[in-house]
Amino acid sequence: MNNFFFCSPTKYIFGRDVENEAGRRIADEGGKKALIVIGGGSVVRSGLLDRVTKSLDEAGIAHTLLSGIQPNPVDTKVYEGIRQARAEKCDFILAVGGGSVIDTSKAIAAGVPYDGDFWDFFMGKPVEKALPVGVVLTIPAAGSEGSGNTVITRLDGLHKISIRSPYLLRPKFALMNPELTYTLPFSQTAAGVADMMSHIFERYFSQTEGVEITDRLCEGALKAIMAEALKIKATPTDYDARANIMWSGTVAHNGVLGVGRQEDWASHGLEHELSAVYGVTHGAGLAVIFPAWMTFMADCQPQRGAQLARRVFDIVDDDDRSAALKGIERLKAFYREMQLPTTLAELGIPEPDIDLLVKKVHENKGTPFGFYRPLFPADSRKIYELAR
Amino acid sequence: MNNFFFCSPTKYIFGRDVENEAGRRIADEGGKKALIVIGGGSVVRSGLLDRVTKSLDEAGIAHTLLSGIQPNPVDTKVYEGIRQARAEKCDFILAVGGGSVIDTSKAIAAGVPYDGDFWDFFMGKPVEKALPVGVVLTIPAAGSEGSGNTVITRLDGLHKISIRSPYLLRPKFALMNPELTYTLPFSQTAAGVADMMSHIFERYFSQTEGVEITDRLCEGALKAIMAEALKIKATPTDYDARANIMWSGTVAHNGVLGVGRQEDWASHGLEHELSAVYGVTHGAGLAVIFPAWMTFMADCQPQRGAQLARRVFDIVDDDDRSAALKGIERLKAFYREMQLPTTLAELGIPEPDIDLLVKKVHENKGTPFGFYRPLFPADSRKIYELAR
Repeated sequence: MNNFFFCSPTKYIFGRDVENEAGRRIADEGGKKALIVIGGGSVVRSGLLDRVTKSLDEAGIAHTLLSGIQPNPVDTKVYEGIRQARAEKCDFILAVGGGSVIDTSKAIAAGVPYDGDFWDFFMGKPVEKALPVGVVLTIPAAGSEGSGNTVITRLDGLHKISIRSPYLLRPKFALMNPELTYTLPFSQTAAGVADMMSHIFERYFSQTEGVEITDRLCEGALKAIMAEALKIKATPTDYDARANIMWSGTVAHNGVLGVGRQEDWASHGLEHELSAVYGVTHGAGLAVIFPAWMTFMADCQPQRGAQLARRVFDIVDDDDRSAALKGIERLKAFYREMQLPTTLAELGIPEPDIDLLVKKVHENKGTPFGFYRPLFPADSRKIYELAR
Repeated sequence: MNNFFFCSPTKYIFGRDVENEAGRRIADEGGKKALIVIGGGSVVRSGLLDRVTKSLDEAGIAHTLLSGIQPNPVDTKVYEGIRQARAEKCDFILAVGGGSVIDTSKAIAAGVPYDGDFWDFFMGKPVEKALPVGVVLTIPAAGSEGSGNTVITRLDGLHKISIRSPYLLRPKFALMNPELTYTLPFSQTAAGVADMMSHIFERYFSQTEGVEITDRLCEGALKAIMAEALKIKATPTDYDARANIMWSGTVAHNGVLGVGRQEDWASHGLEHELSAVYGVTHGAGLAVIFPAWMTFMADCQPQRGAQLARRVFDIVDDDDRSAALKGIERLKAFYREMQLPTTLAELGIPEPDIDLLVKKVHENKGTPFGFYRPLFPADSRKIYELAR
């Protein structure tokens, strides 16, 4: 086990009706005026935004709205939010949405008190100050509500880059009402499930020895996620299944499953290029990339994949490579049951420009990148080929 | 799943040599003068106290020492610590030890800024203010380094009572070096393992439905703990095994395994009377009480025990009661392998005063107590009888 620092200071307030606490919670954190950040119109149409603004009004919190955040959120909306928050003298950012809205909110929060270009942080400058961020979560997927990460796409150059500030970018609170997810299209629930599973895989596939406690926690979480996801498929308004999936998305990414181990994150790098170039849904892209990446690893480094297969998919097979491959088949079968794509063609990319993808991923991530087995361009190419 | 609030703000700094950061961490929290709380002489003899005080000196943190905290810590040492901290104008409490030292430190921290008798908090008054507490952990067991709980025994009346303040009593930081546990007597490592497993059982045995994610995390943690504990038995200086057990003790009790579910805690009540009356080691007492409590439950409410048996002990048996009983046998076999007692006689209490134990546990815990199946005096009596 590696040395580690871990702290998860976000206050999780979980259950029915908790979105109505938004105003009071902002007041508790010392906020006076909030920039509310939302995506498309669904939070307006559902009445959620009204309930949230009412709770702010009742708590005496002034507010202004930034809307129109899209999936794979872009820098232009961050610049817009920074300008608006400064002009309106906001001292708090409230994200009402899923990962894209939360990630945009975090980037705005870091950018407002910074004199330079916020993109500097994505080029390596450490965040030293940020406005506090709160979250009303509507999509369980990215885990951004409990993480110190944000991923933003540079619109002009199609660069999708993530930054991590373990402490400053963690939301102060996350209000999590599973009922808000009842009306998600099934494809979005499914993509979210693939996203949270991938956050566990990135931590699970590690070269670090002697990490049984986190191995077992990862394996348990994966089993729970798959079982509960299928319950949602059967009954979209199954409260407990929705609650399990919502909380699993947080657990998968708040860090507790990764302590003391070298994490991988190559697959996220490979997928980010798909999202940046082809605009695909991040979770759906991961459902394609991960089985391909695991298949590549089964040939050269099968141990972890074999353990996953045996412990999570109950594969009985003494040969590591063979066990790993059988596990991948089970994983793909689960994704298909969730109506997720498992090939680039199914993802709507029948003719992927693999030269471009390989070039860009190594431009953004360096050479080699990833830690379970660092990837060189020939490896990345092979994985994209396996994903066809 | 029940609604819940969860926050785990403690900073965990984990790995080799981290005890040398004590001074700097106290300074980061704004401390100027620390009351260092220790148990017996082992932290002195091992040189740990010297290393810690050196780090405080280097960081310019003044300090004074309170020593002699015993297992099952008592109120008299809390009163002594409160007087000393006030006289010496301490603004920080640094616990260097295991659960007893940390629990005493928390009670002192709550008592110093309070005008009345600190025991009021144990009689139901909420803690509203407390000095910050830091921890250098030497015994993985109680999980007090990451919890908001403290358990203190009233010496005059043999009352052992716990209080919980989810936020205020959580340590600001916990410095966790697995190497510090190499020299623990095996019996103490084993009792610690039984203690952390019991913290998971108390959460696992729940009436709350629809909590698959925490079920699976609990089951995974139990599997990891048992595997790693046996590695320590074989090789006391196995760093990774020590690290897994140390971190498991924290995970077992920092709350993440209990969110969204009604926890039980009857067995801790039953055991606390054994510790209070007979002075037995808490963990060893739990190794006796839990199998007895589970046996009682197998007869009247076997579902959870059966799931535990099937998922953690790989029992294949369709009948819930029978599966649960087989699981309990496996658990006892594991405890015996860890050289733990599984009966009151083996615990050194061949003639338990069951009348007294039943009377006192209902005096302290009320009637009924526990949540998985609330216990009336006839039930408590039966469980103590099963433990003989």
